[in-house]
Amino acid sequence: MRDQNKIRSNCAISNGLEILGDRWTLLIVRDLMFTNRREFSHFLKAGEGISTNILSDRLEKLQCFGIISKQPHPEHGKKFIYDLTEQGLKLAPTLLEFMLWSYETQQNSFIPPKILDLLQKDRKKLVELINQRKCLEMQFF
Amino acid sequence: MRDQNKIRSNCAISNGLEILGDRWTLLIVRDLMFTNRREFSHFLKAGEGISTNILSDRLEKLQCFGIISKQPHPEHGKKFIYDLTEQGLKLAPTLLEFMLWSYETQQNSFIPPKILDLLQKDRKKLVELINQRKCLEMQFF
Repeated sequence: MRDQNKIRSNCAISNGLEILGDRWTLLIVRDLMFTNRREFSHFLKAGEGISTNILSDRLEKLQCFGIISKQPHPEHGKKFIYDLTEQGLKLAPTLLEFMLWSYETQQNSFIPPKILDLLQKDRKKLVELINQRKCLEMQFF
Repeated sequence: MRDQNKIRSNCAISNGLEILGDRWTLLIVRDLMFTNRREFSHFLKAGEGISTNILSDRLEKLQCFGIISKQPHPEHGKKFIYDLTEQGLKLAPTLLEFMLWSYETQQNSFIPPKILDLLQKDRKKLVELINQRKCLEMQFF
């Protein structure tokens, strides 16, 4: 999926940023990880105001890199359902650390109380819940 | 430092991405965290080919948000020395998790062996070493 000619370096951080290093991509991962947003129209309504063309581009990119899956909607023929793959779910520790950093250092950074509580008390359990896709039941957002 | 009118949401991830959500900013943080690059010209030579105008912009942004400091160079009047602030050093767990995710899921993602070894065996010690600025002695990169 990756154009070998375009790789800037073999540094793991640089390589990872080729996929996730922009303003919007991790917000889609966040939505799929912590909320029940699964359709194109759901991501548009997430609150940060992503535009349709950027959303299309980022969904395609995430799919290309194997971070999300795209399946036909079981009830609506023209719609698709997106979800995190195993590789995408492995981003949970990164997102949780980033979330906590933002919360601790930036004004107005909010973490839903249930996530914050688990993040501070039992991070391992929180990662397990994410991997088991229990976030919806927990109604984190 | 943050223009309140421009905040898209109070989500900790979205807020954090306003600062760090681009291709280049975390590479400067990486350089300051793991290497002895401290001057403008050093970052230019990092290998990924950052341009001078993007570098200027990102250094100013990181300084505005209190993530890096900028001091006059003690020996060269016209130069400056950059370093991570306490707030910047707190990004260590996020960068380490991201590095590991990239290493485990992406082809051609390299982590220097000394970092990888500590990351897998004793992550807490690695974060301590970063906070104590011992990375240069360890010659991680």
